[in-house]
Amino acid sequence: MSDKTTIGVGMVGYAFMGRVHSQAWRSVGAFFDLPLAPRMAVLAGRSKERTEAAAAQLGWADVETDWRELVRRDDVQIVDICTPGDSHAEIAIAALEAGKHVICEKPLANTVAEAEAMTQAAAKAPGKSMVAFNYRRVPAVALARRYVEEGRVGEIRHVRAVYLQDWIVDPEFPLVWRLQKDKAGSGALGDIGAHIVDAAQFITGQNLLGVSALTETFIKERPLATESAGLGATGSAERGQVTVDDAALFIGRMSGGALASFEATRFANGRKNAMRIEINGSRGSLAFDFESMNELWYSEGGGGFERILVTEPDHPYVGAWWPPGHGLGYEHTFTHEVKDFLEAIANGTDPSPSFADGLRVQRVLEAVERSAADNSRYTEVED
Amino acid sequence: MSDKTTIGVGMVGYAFMGRVHSQAWRSVGAFFDLPLAPRMAVLAGRSKERTEAAAAQLGWADVETDWRELVRRDDVQIVDICTPGDSHAEIAIAALEAGKHVICEKPLANTVAEAEAMTQAAAKAPGKSMVAFNYRRVPAVALARRYVEEGRVGEIRHVRAVYLQDWIVDPEFPLVWRLQKDKAGSGALGDIGAHIVDAAQFITGQNLLGVSALTETFIKERPLATESAGLGATGSAERGQVTVDDAALFIGRMSGGALASFEATRFANGRKNAMRIEINGSRGSLAFDFESMNELWYSEGGGGFERILVTEPDHPYVGAWWPPGHGLGYEHTFTHEVKDFLEAIANGTDPSPSFADGLRVQRVLEAVERSAADNSRYTEVED
Amino acid sequence: MSDKTTIGVGMVGYAFMGRVHSQAWRSVGAFFDLPLAPRMAVLAGRSKERTEAAAAQLGWADVETDWRELVRRDDVQIVDICTPGDSHAEIAIAALEAGKHVICEKPLANTVAEAEAMTQAAAKAPGKSMVAFNYRRVPAVALARRYVEEGRVGEIRHVRAVYLQDWIVDPEFPLVWRLQKDKAGSGALGDIGAHIVDAAQFITGQNLLGVSALTETFIKERPLATESAGLGATGSAERGQVTVDDAALFIGRMSGGALASFEATRFANGRKNAMRIEINGSRGSLAFDFESMNELWYSEGGGGFERILVTEPDHPYVGAWWPPGHGLGYEHTFTHEVKDFLEAIANGTDPSPSFADGLRVQRVLEAVERSAADNSRYTEVED
Amino acid sequence: MSDKTTIGVGMVGYAFMGRVHSQAWRSVGAFFDLPLAPRMAVLAGRSKERTEAAAAQLGWADVETDWRELVRRDDVQIVDICTPGDSHAEIAIAALEAGKHVICEKPLANTVAEAEAMTQAAAKAPGKSMVAFNYRRVPAVALARRYVEEGRVGEIRHVRAVYLQDWIVDPEFPLVWRLQKDKAGSGALGDIGAHIVDAAQFITGQNLLGVSALTETFIKERPLATESAGLGATGSAERGQVTVDDAALFIGRMSGGALASFEATRFANGRKNAMRIEINGSRGSLAFDFESMNELWYSEGGGGFERILVTEPDHPYVGAWWPPGHGLGYEHTFTHEVKDFLEAIANGTDPSPSFADGLRVQRVLEAVERSAADNSRYTEVED
Repeated sequence: MSDKTTIGVGMVGYAFMGRVHSQAWRSVGAFFDLPLAPRMAVLAGRSKERTEAAAAQLGWADVETDWRELVRRDDVQIVDICTPGDSHAEIAIAALEAGKHVICEKPLANTVAEAEAMTQAAAKAPGKSMVAFNYRRVPAVALARRYVEEGRVGEIRHVRAVYLQDWIVDPEFPLVWRLQKDKAGSGALGDIGAHIVDAAQFITGQNLLGVSALTETFIKERPLATESAGLGATGSAERGQVTVDDAALFIGRMSGGALASFEATRFANGRKNAMRIEINGSRGSLAFDFESMNELWYSEGGGGFERILVTEPDHPYVGAWWPPGHGLGYEHTFTHEVKDFLEAIANGTDPSPSFADGLRVQRVLEAVERSAADNSRYTEVED
Repeated sequence: MSDKTTIGVGMVGYAFMGRVHSQAWRSVGAFFDLPLAPRMAVLAGRSKERTEAAAAQLGWADVETDWRELVRRDDVQIVDICTPGDSHAEIAIAALEAGKHVICEKPLANTVAEAEAMTQAAAKAPGKSMVAFNYRRVPAVALARRYVEEGRVGEIRHVRAVYLQDWIVDPEFPLVWRLQKDKAGSGALGDIGAHIVDAAQFITGQNLLGVSALTETFIKERPLATESAGLGATGSAERGQVTVDDAALFIGRMSGGALASFEATRFANGRKNAMRIEINGSRGSLAFDFESMNELWYSEGGGGFERILVTEPDHPYVGAWWPPGHGLGYEHTFTHEVKDFLEAIANGTDPSPSFADGLRVQRVLEAVERSAADNSRYTEVED
Repeated sequence: MSDKTTIGVGMVGYAFMGRVHSQAWRSVGAFFDLPLAPRMAVLAGRSKERTEAAAAQLGWADVETDWRELVRRDDVQIVDICTPGDSHAEIAIAALEAGKHVICEKPLANTVAEAEAMTQAAAKAPGKSMVAFNYRRVPAVALARRYVEEGRVGEIRHVRAVYLQDWIVDPEFPLVWRLQKDKAGSGALGDIGAHIVDAAQFITGQNLLGVSALTETFIKERPLATESAGLGATGSAERGQVTVDDAALFIGRMSGGALASFEATRFANGRKNAMRIEINGSRGSLAFDFESMNELWYSEGGGGFERILVTEPDHPYVGAWWPPGHGLGYEHTFTHEVKDFLEAIANGTDPSPSFADGLRVQRVLEAVERSAADNSRYTEVED
Repeated sequence: MSDKTTIGVGMVGYAFMGRVHSQAWRSVGAFFDLPLAPRMAVLAGRSKERTEAAAAQLGWADVETDWRELVRRDDVQIVDICTPGDSHAEIAIAALEAGKHVICEKPLANTVAEAEAMTQAAAKAPGKSMVAFNYRRVPAVALARRYVEEGRVGEIRHVRAVYLQDWIVDPEFPLVWRLQKDKAGSGALGDIGAHIVDAAQFITGQNLLGVSALTETFIKERPLATESAGLGATGSAERGQVTVDDAALFIGRMSGGALASFEATRFANGRKNAMRIEINGSRGSLAFDFESMNELWYSEGGGGFERILVTEPDHPYVGAWWPPGHGLGYEHTFTHEVKDFLEAIANGTDPSPSFADGLRVQRVLEAVERSAADNSRYTEVED
């Protein structure tokens, strides 16, 4: 009924990330006045039966059982990569070389080498590319960035970021793919640590220059998972080795002179998704906790912290939704992401965060691993 | 691609409530395993052009400019009423008489007489009917109800409910339809007071027996609205009379012996959508604030209040969505509502809240108005 | 060692209130630069042995077993009344007639008649008099008053006050004196309801004009207390009637046009001393909860609420104590009270709250009781 | 009037710490049933006039202008050291050698060497000794320790501690003694970092084994202070070098296998005295923030965090004070401290924290400084 140009989307993977991306593609047009109308064209997955069931439920028009076929299709202009990190590079590079636009889940890749190859491919390709650090699109996080840009924080002295979860506190929780280095690249570090590194760099507009780090695997062996899928996986009697970190702590210096601390853990009992960041500057401070995602706390000039309910029409992204006080949820961060991606494609601008931003995060993660392996020595992040 | 039986939905009205209902119909099938697949068949509105634009954006397949046509259509089995309260009775009764299922926005009607007629029509009709007190489907509110049912609160002593907003604090805010008695029935009382009365009765499983009330209109005259639509309406130089309450306070007794207090206001500066309810019982207490909608606070046996992040798989509705700590937003309450409505239709059970529940709330509102008019005298709610 | 003029204090009663008043008299001179140095001269109590033990522990130089003797003594210039309400009038009037200054615990009296007699005696007497609504001297409450005076709240629309406790939820909690009308005058209403009425009038600078009220006694009979003293009293097998309210709810109108609601209860399970008040005005809002007594929340112009940590040197009373962020406790409200009382005596000004203020509160309490007895009818507070 | 054995106290220094210690000595006997009655015998300070004024205000019976005289006096059995860290060793050792009991403000000393000498002197002396890490006596912190001891936290995985202040954010704040290395030993590290190191070790019952650290001085030069005293000092036109850290961050490993992070800063704009600690264990988690000092948050088995109002009679120290919900303030931590010290003296037990505990904290601080100076290398804390 609309006369907007449509743009075909092909998505690879339909687990947790695939479900939330689907909701974004499905909803974005109803709320934002977009230059392009996304069409949920194809879903790719290995099992024909399960992919078809997922497509039916999630609203994809067609399926492929080989992502290479999806990349080749003419009705696909955007490739959305929702697979584990070990396949990101191959799919993304193929899609870029096929002239597609690519939006890729984070972390960009499991290694710096792969991330570099992807970034180079993105630089050469005609298509647009974006790495899906969705927390940048939490309205409160975007508002925090705006406050920094407006000078309301002043010279930044401290960044204090943690990402706390507790879903593997139980030693009998099985050895799912996120606990295996070959599939996941790293543990808490790459999965959730990557988010707070990106958020810290995004909000402050500064790079993390170097780190001193500790990592730990508290539970070394776990029951093998009977299926490798999601959080609900159940364990078998056999055990295998946990090959990733359970927790990573690091401190470092930002390019603007701030001291920064980071902690990513899956062993913070009672903390479910506490992605928190606080920024202290010479003029003001900001604090955020994703468990209360519709709030941003701001202290001006040493005064008390104001609890800003980030649901006002002039707050980032919020005007498209509901009246003040009617909060948004997790999935909206993805809706905002694809909205910005579609606009960048239509306008010919460079989407943010770019693959280069993803590579930079990857290099921080690598520096963390090198520091942790080398007696916590302060380790510079490569350029 | 699915072989589920589809069921056609026709929606009347496409303003704020229409937008959020659309998102519910659009999303529900992707998250819940439903017995019926809703099809967004028709949208009705008075202006052809604007209705078509809304339908295109919100995803409705066809439009009608007369709701009577919508009610007559064979491809519509569910009529979803999202208009102001003055038209609810006429549309709902017509739809029920035409054999449709009806889901109707709250308050059920602008008068008790209309609400009675609707309830009688619902009782005689073959279709299912439901009044859309969406806050019952906030997972935290549903969990509160579960706690009461499980005896974790004990004998209830106190109910303390407020619904605080501030969108008309400015005396220059225009005279939109919600401030006109002929269209809206009442002011804060019917718009938001109705929600807390229903929530109190739902969570406690008790009826409010009688009330003693005060109402007030702080700003008696406002600029006429240049368009009668939404919150963003702008005012003209001419002024008109505000014919509804700005705020309503009432205290009363519940059928189980509890004392209850209620306050609905649009003049609580800084409170955006603070729909709050606290229940104190002999064994425990519960507290909820919609501005932090993913949290329920529970005190057991006089101990400290526990902040339950209502995002666990075993919490009501939540298992269908994201992992723990990844919160939901306002719109999900509607998605849960239509999910339950579709299941009731498929299973032949009676949806809740029923039109009778809506009538009961209406009778409370009327008792409030009578008490306020009669020197706050304690006024029994009619049966 | 100091050359300040000393002023002798005689205190009647040494239970809970006596202990906290003693700490105030003992500490005030060390923190505030006072015009008069209080000397803890005499403590009066009925039992010689117990009074002597209390005096030794609390730091009083001498004891009397008859308060009349205390009133007569030349080394007593200030009489501090810490007994239950039924003896306030007699002691206060005698002390005033003897030319003493009098500070009297709240409620001023158990009846309006007694309160009137006390107020008349105070008007005629040469001594200064004060009723000990200590919550006025919580720094955050005093700051709230200052904000209202400075116009930062604007025209006040709403006052929302509750005082929630839970110490008699257990039906086996014994029938202590606070649950007996002849000794306590009323229950939650006079004990804690009086505080929120005074706080509401103090912060807003407005009087409560009339009320519509409900009261309830949830537990009608309780075990007789084996000793009538404190909260720790234990019950016997015999039972007696509870003759006071367990909870009181009332709504009303303030002299400036605001709507106000009040709730005082000892049955709010999990709430220990939640004396809360929120004020909404045309320019801003204030919120306070005594359970977080070092905080005041302020919203300006509809913005987010700022959590003001009321520990800055320029906040009321705070400069005398510790650096920012080092909070005060319950007892400090009394220290501030006697500080202001001593200054008023030295400067010849009228201390606040006066006996007339106490009488006004008493009249509100009486209106509440009359309204509750008369079908919640709106009942004007007598002048 | 009491027949308790009195014990004479002599205090050295009457600035901030002296004022709060005085309040403790003055109040402790009125609330706790002590085996010994402290007598505030002598106050020592350099200026006779100012010391006499302080003694008059704070309630000390006599003064000395040389602490050596105070140490020699027969009416002094306890020496309370409230001077800056550079004089702790000399005074404490002299007092111990004179057979006195010694309570010494933290940090124990400015250097490890001094702290070692003090610890050796304490070990040989007949008197009792204690270092005044007062935060151990916050009831909520003591309750946290109790929870760990009772196994309610389980195997500890994470310790996360920060101490955030903002009183020197302004570059024009003058160069007070706390910013001079020769007087203060270090900056935020020794002043407030010492507290969180001690609290972490106290609550967990584990030692910090090694650290990797960063320190920073954001403002290198400041106006010279016109008087060296307190926070209110004003600056002159001349400038001097800041010779201590403004902030210190460190991560490390605890003896039980936990990862720990610490941050001490005076540049966290808007944070006044945010001494925060969170512990995550295999069975539960604890969280505390001194800015809300009457609260402890506890999550059991991954459930929501319960806000425990630490004002119940069975909570540590609290039974001596007020009813539930009536909070305590900063100064009470000192009152609890001297209460425990007096009991240890009377009972012949060893007070805690001991000088050895103070030395252990000092060694952590030294390891932090060595790590920071050596490229953040992981540095073991000496035994």
